[in-house]
Amino acid sequence: MELLKQRILAEGQYMGDGILKVDSFVNHQVDPALMDEAGKEFARLFGDLSPSKILTAEISGIAPAVSTGLHMNIPVVFARKRKPITMPDQVLLTLSPSHTKGRMVELIVSPEYLGAGERVLIIDDFLATGKTIEGLIELAQIAGSTVLGVGALIEKTFEEGRKLLEERGLLVHSLARIESMDEHGIHFH
Amino acid sequence: MELLKQRILAEGQYMGDGILKVDSFVNHQVDPALMDEAGKEFARLFGDLSPSKILTAEISGIAPAVSTGLHMNIPVVFARKRKPITMPDQVLLTLSPSHTKGRMVELIVSPEYLGAGERVLIIDDFLATGKTIEGLIELAQIAGSTVLGVGALIEKTFEEGRKLLEERGLLVHSLARIESMDEHGIHFH
Repeated sequence: MELLKQRILAEGQYMGDGILKVDSFVNHQVDPALMDEAGKEFARLFGDLSPSKILTAEISGIAPAVSTGLHMNIPVVFARKRKPITMPDQVLLTLSPSHTKGRMVELIVSPEYLGAGERVLIIDDFLATGKTIEGLIELAQIAGSTVLGVGALIEKTFEEGRKLLEERGLLVHSLARIESMDEHGIHFH
Repeated sequence: MELLKQRILAEGQYMGDGILKVDSFVNHQVDPALMDEAGKEFARLFGDLSPSKILTAEISGIAPAVSTGLHMNIPVVFARKRKPITMPDQVLLTLSPSHTKGRMVELIVSPEYLGAGERVLIIDDFLATGKTIEGLIELAQIAGSTVLGVGALIEKTFEEGRKLLEERGLLVHSLARIESMDEHGIHFH
């Protein structure tokens, strides 16, 4: 998506250690019009899969997932990282390593909203090592759902995420594919 | 907003202790079409204020805030509850009591995205005691921004939030105003 690439070139900051800061339009400040365009594009790319539900992880996956859900006319479930008191005692929970937090985080979904027979599309902000997304896939599988595809706004293709997901037979699309980045710049495929 | 009230009556669950569970369309599973309608309605209600930015708090404020931002064509900043490594060392931080968590939580905004001269509209999922929203107002004030209005999907009018906010001279709108709720039902104004 050209609009997203331009924005990354204009405002993205390489922070070292493989971390790209896009806080001005994705991770802290959000550009709603950009998210809407991303949602339209994901709806186009994944429409043939006919998913029944979108699954994402709080926090930064919510905006692109809800935009996609609007354009596909399906609900969105966001995995929580802490169990709120409104959740039942029995939940679906997995542990996932967080690169930006440097520790394991919990991903929790209530079985009330993810169950057998759902056709799941996963949407997230980043695809890098794929570990968070693998956590979401495992939650969906425990629930008896089938994961069909994975969409990410930004992919770091120098990490192994896509390979892991394609080996599971999933359709993978990202809207900006970063081949390399360093203090001199960001390079797309 | 009639659509929201109907949904609360159909799916909302009273959990005791003043807590309403709306996890099936707001707080865990999100209905994107409902959020889009709410965003349109907020844009209509607050259009005359001509805000330059929307401020919300992660996590459940993000979906209605981004929908509103899309319909008003302005960016959204969501206050973080934990400081990510992409944030600068100096941040705007306040403490806010969380009813559903039973403890104080941090609300953190980077001064990169909230500064002097901004005209701020706050959007959140719930207006109850108003404490979270007061935390957001204080962050905006430290930043030198002016808060003009507050919109919430669901208001519990038996708590004191609206009074606190109107005493500050703010325009307050909520889309479903709950007068009382107990094990027998939920009653709107």
